[in-house]
Amino acid sequence: MDQLTIIKIGGNILDNQSFLDNLLDYFSALPGKKILVHGGGKIANVLMEQLGIKPVMIDGRRITDEKTLEIVTMVYAGLINKKLVARLQQRGCDALGLTGADANIIPAVKRPVKDIDYGFVGDVYAKDISSNTINSFLAMGLVPVCAPITHNGDGILLNTNADTIASSIAIALAHYYEVNLVYCLEKNGVLMNSEDENSVISKIDKKSFNEYVLSGVVSAGMIPKLENAFKAIDSGVKQVTICGPQAFKQDNAIVGTVIVC
Amino acid sequence: MDQLTIIKIGGNILDNQSFLDNLLDYFSALPGKKILVHGGGKIANVLMEQLGIKPVMIDGRRITDEKTLEIVTMVYAGLINKKLVARLQQRGCDALGLTGADANIIPAVKRPVKDIDYGFVGDVYAKDISSNTINSFLAMGLVPVCAPITHNGDGILLNTNADTIASSIAIALAHYYEVNLVYCLEKNGVLMNSEDENSVISKIDKKSFNEYVLSGVVSAGMIPKLENAFKAIDSGVKQVTICGPQAFKQDNAIVGTVIVC
Repeated sequence: MDQLTIIKIGGNILDNQSFLDNLLDYFSALPGKKILVHGGGKIANVLMEQLGIKPVMIDGRRITDEKTLEIVTMVYAGLINKKLVARLQQRGCDALGLTGADANIIPAVKRPVKDIDYGFVGDVYAKDISSNTINSFLAMGLVPVCAPITHNGDGILLNTNADTIASSIAIALAHYYEVNLVYCLEKNGVLMNSEDENSVISKIDKKSFNEYVLSGVVSAGMIPKLENAFKAIDSGVKQVTICGPQAFKQDNAIVGTVIVC
Repeated sequence: MDQLTIIKIGGNILDNQSFLDNLLDYFSALPGKKILVHGGGKIANVLMEQLGIKPVMIDGRRITDEKTLEIVTMVYAGLINKKLVARLQQRGCDALGLTGADANIIPAVKRPVKDIDYGFVGDVYAKDISSNTINSFLAMGLVPVCAPITHNGDGILLNTNADTIASSIAIALAHYYEVNLVYCLEKNGVLMNSEDENSVISKIDKKSFNEYVLSGVVSAGMIPKLENAFKAIDSGVKQVTICGPQAFKQDNAIVGTVIVC
């Protein structure tokens, strides 16, 4: 089986020019098939403030009304995605910017309203990913760069969690490749002590994860991220690593927290 | 030779929901290989005004400073492009949104400063279009939807005239296909009397073009559009038509002004 590396970069990497340059240098030089998935960053909030729209977040998730959807589509699929594509092309990496609507690679379902109406937010499932189309792009030597925007197939774009996009693509392509999924954050990995960047936990399995949640070592946004990671491992993804921008200084190896069953 | 239809839609079509729906219905149902190229519309100017940035136009061309480039990238490559892609997918048309940076399909050159510094504006040439990559997308059954943003290969995005993108792609692909290039405006074609939508000139050749310019029948933005059209015909494009949104009501045939040598 060929290897496939999927790197997801979060907003804090996108917002830090030196982190981002480092990551793009590493990613461009990485041999073999690869996919970049990116999140949002602060730019959408800055633009919303300039336009007098108040961002509404519940549990770290954005409530997306029609105006907010337009702004995240502009910022994620337009500004961030195309800047990344241009800067990867500059490095000789044949990047192809995509949302889930493009070539229908990621169909999504508008999140059903239970307690909270998240608005134009999409839930994605690995089974719906168009693996054949992504495979064709990879076979052409192209490097997909995925923005966290999907669609419902009925003409509506949807704001979608980039971590879930990354893990869903990883799971869908695990049938064809040895997939190495990497979540790149501003922290150097999962930290034993959130104040100490040198306290990276080198390996987490489900048992230790549960213990870390109980003890509070792992909390907030890191919990769904690790749950996504375990789901990927359980579904055939070969390796999931959570790391920071420093991880990419080394040759090939990525240093961070490795998630195991 | 297979047939390829390239339709370019301008801002006035994008801004009119009924025109746009009609066009998207027609385009989706059109058999064979096809490409959609879109311009900008009023949204970029509205957003600039909301952000307190004054649009600067010289001879109908936008002066693009860094902030303006960010806004047109957001609006053209993000909002407009992805909405079009989602609405084509809704109609069963497997659209793939692209800028010139994506898969490096349209490398451009930053316009040299002579009398006027246009800023981040790109000039494109048919010889530089990545025909092989576009052909691969078409062979996959995908329908490229091109936004008027290109890149210089050195990490810089460039604002680019959509008419020129359409004619450059048409010329580049004329080696492989019988290309039918269609410019869709808000007017029904080139009009003998600009006040009378029924005065469409059915055919224009170079001789009559020169006469129409001298007599003032053809003026302003229509002149470069027709020059682009003649260049395309001279370079092997089979047919160029300038038409309005009404042209697409008919079955297959497109009624408007046909450009001939």
